[in-house]
Amino acid sequence: MGQKPITFLRQVISLCVNPDLLNNESFPADARERARRILQGCKGGSLGSYSDSVGVEVIRKDIAAYIERRDGFPSDPDNIFLSTGASDAIKNMVKLMVRGSGRDQTGVMIPIPQYPLYSAVTAELNAVQVNYYLDEDNNWALDIAELERSVKEARQHCTPRVLCVINPGNPTGQVLSKENVREIIKFAAREHLFLMADEVYQDNIYAEGCAFHSFKKTMMELGPEYSTLELASFHSTSKGYMGECGFRGGYMEVINMDPQVKLQLKKLVSTKLCPPVSGQATMDCVVNPPQPGEPSYESFIKEKTAVLKSLAERAKLVAETFNSIEGVTCNTVQGAMYAFPRIALPQRAVEKAKSLGQAPDGFYALQLLEQAGICVVPGSGFGQREGTYHFRTTILPQPDKLKIFMDAFTAFHNKFMKEYAD
Amino acid sequence: MGQKPITFLRQVISLCVNPDLLNNESFPADARERARRILQGCKGGSLGSYSDSVGVEVIRKDIAAYIERRDGFPSDPDNIFLSTGASDAIKNMVKLMVRGSGRDQTGVMIPIPQYPLYSAVTAELNAVQVNYYLDEDNNWALDIAELERSVKEARQHCTPRVLCVINPGNPTGQVLSKENVREIIKFAAREHLFLMADEVYQDNIYAEGCAFHSFKKTMMELGPEYSTLELASFHSTSKGYMGECGFRGGYMEVINMDPQVKLQLKKLVSTKLCPPVSGQATMDCVVNPPQPGEPSYESFIKEKTAVLKSLAERAKLVAETFNSIEGVTCNTVQGAMYAFPRIALPQRAVEKAKSLGQAPDGFYALQLLEQAGICVVPGSGFGQREGTYHFRTTILPQPDKLKIFMDAFTAFHNKFMKEYAD
Ligand SMILES: Cc1ncc(COP(=O)(O)O)c(C=O)c1O
Ligand SMILES: Cc1ncc(COP(=O)(O)O)c(C=O)c1O
Repeated sequence: MGQKPITFLRQVISLCVNPDLLNNESFPADARERARRILQGCKGGSLGSYSDSVGVEVIRKDIAAYIERRDGFPSDPDNIFLSTGASDAIKNMVKLMVRGSGRDQTGVMIPIPQYPLYSAVTAELNAVQVNYYLDEDNNWALDIAELERSVKEARQHCTPRVLCVINPGNPTGQVLSKENVREIIKFAAREHLFLMADEVYQDNIYAEGCAFHSFKKTMMELGPEYSTLELASFHSTSKGYMGECGFRGGYMEVINMDPQVKLQLKKLVSTKLCPPVSGQATMDCVVNPPQPGEPSYESFIKEKTAVLKSLAERAKLVAETFNSIEGVTCNTVQGAMYAFPRIALPQRAVEKAKSLGQAPDGFYALQLLEQAGICVVPGSGFGQREGTYHFRTTILPQPDKLKIFMDAFTAFHNKFMKEYAD
Repeated sequence: MGQKPITFLRQVISLCVNPDLLNNESFPADARERARRILQGCKGGSLGSYSDSVGVEVIRKDIAAYIERRDGFPSDPDNIFLSTGASDAIKNMVKLMVRGSGRDQTGVMIPIPQYPLYSAVTAELNAVQVNYYLDEDNNWALDIAELERSVKEARQHCTPRVLCVINPGNPTGQVLSKENVREIIKFAAREHLFLMADEVYQDNIYAEGCAFHSFKKTMMELGPEYSTLELASFHSTSKGYMGECGFRGGYMEVINMDPQVKLQLKKLVSTKLCPPVSGQATMDCVVNPPQPGEPSYESFIKEKTAVLKSLAERAKLVAETFNSIEGVTCNTVQGAMYAFPRIALPQRAVEKAKSLGQAPDGFYALQLLEQAGICVVPGSGFGQREGTYHFRTTILPQPDKLKIFMDAFTAFHNKFMKEYAD
């Protein structure tokens, strides 16, 4: 994901790939021990064999242990499904939920703005996309009244069965408050919706006062009345402070699923044999990093802290800079890896875009690319309220590059606004 | 896949994972050079970044170069799509081909016996499975008259659009003759079928007189009349002499596809971002092994030769042993990694199975497991002609284990046949 890899992780994976190195003492003892442990769980002691379709057992156990530490509630390894990145698990889960036609056709509720995987998967699997809008005026919070409006309207023409929530949000960068998570759970229970919690950014929280509240933990805390809600939570190696997206590791924890349905899920994932075992090993490193007292611990903590600190600084820098520019407003980037500023496009720019057959923010983004060499994704790719215009940019470039970027952006924007002033 | 990994491959991948090792001179210079080259093609010089959805460009070029060397005909890197194992590419391709309902619904022609991915994918994607039977009496050859019967019958109730051929075959182990491949191409052209050639076992050819004839090459040789046939060929890191299935590397070469359709294919694969970059690097090693003159060449050739020689010996041993047992007949294992012997089950055994609600070969396999601790897959999992019974076993166990297995099997079988003698 652009950032420097965590040394411990790369050591462990290279040892797993090439066990000839296992006795090489230039590798720290804990990395070698970790690699040995993973390999013992693999068939033939090798990353090069297929694993069980649901993943390597020892890795599923490590994931369950991680969730238990995180939430303070038990997690059953049998509920853990390794996957080829979170994308794969999300797609499989939607697939499992889709049925019916006409008014019985499955509706999948997704946030707007959304990460486009959701609209793509919904379209591909022939489900009905049901939009609910995040509240931009309230730092992209999730308003329960809006969920209620959305589900009610959807029931006119389809059967909503799934509620997708992305927390922290992509592209919007909000971190849901505990109270908000609680309300969402109650809503899902009330409306009999299967809750898909995309929590791939759970380690990417920057704003003061914000914390990650997992849906699982919050649900358990709500007590017996809600502790039977059907829920899947998705995680990934791609984000966090490790950012190893190329290995395509991920998992889902599936809670309270009917055993018969779970059997179908296992059948579904088994068609394609198993997720990449190297990605599974990477996932193990994410959930099971060096512990205090282990030889790699100190350098690991140093690397982790540096990455997260730098991301937090950049999150702040980006939002502040955007907000200092006339005609641009940007919510606090509380988490994840993106800013999604709103641009007050002059009417003349909107008309110019329309005359060219382009979306207004698409036109803006294209000009930005052509005139300043800066690439952003127009808000129309994620969805936005009618008549509002946005773009998404990542906070991943290193601080020096980011400053250059923000300066070039400011210059472009001011020129653009002048050119199209109403 | 159970065999010892090829050292060069594991060295290259561990270097790609952990570039801190790139200057470590205990790795051969060619492995380090290869790793550097792959990493230069990766975003941020790292396996840990997403690649293009279709795969890393330099790896696509290496694959195209491999196909050119293999076939003696040009291959365009733009026709190469990396994938998460061949499974992923096969599924995407079927997905692309499925449309219509009723008599217009896409029929997918698959061999019987088949590798069960095909029936699973066809069912999951809502296509019509159209069976054609391989000719057991003719070492599982593909009889054109049978293809003709099959397509004609299918046209009564669906629209066959895809012909899947597995060569060398799983579970059947046959290697198609050049003449056979030629006839299949002519049939596909005549019937306007998209040809999906599963060639993942292209390096697994054992029987004397057999050779791998790729569909691409054979089609090109047939001249302009056939050189516009639409064809996809699938390959994988999972088989061959490297057998690195855990990394889930694969690719397809897509030939003569309409540019508009190809665009849709690119869109389809992009939903899930990209195949694991570690699997892509593994694929690169498969198509681009050490060359004469390079430091790793000799030891590589030694390892490769040893693996293939041992597989060939085991292929022979397994078929010969089965054929020496009364009531078992087994075609020559010309290629791939399996034997699919036929068992002449006594009528009493068939009735016993039916009384237990089991398939007769399922009953046999279960008894084999319980009494002799030997696990095989009953033929009913792959499909077989009505009234015939088979099972599939791999030739992968090491020769000493394989001998023990064959002895235990023989003892079980003779006892079983006596017990249920008519
Ligand atoms: C919200 C969200 N979910 C899921 C994913 C998929 O991640 P992966 O498939 O790499 O695990 C992403 C990737 O950007 C994302 O932003
Ligand atoms: C005929 C055939 N095709 C495709 C595959 C899938 O291989 P992979 O997805 O590991 O590349 C297999 C695996 O056994 C196979 O036997």
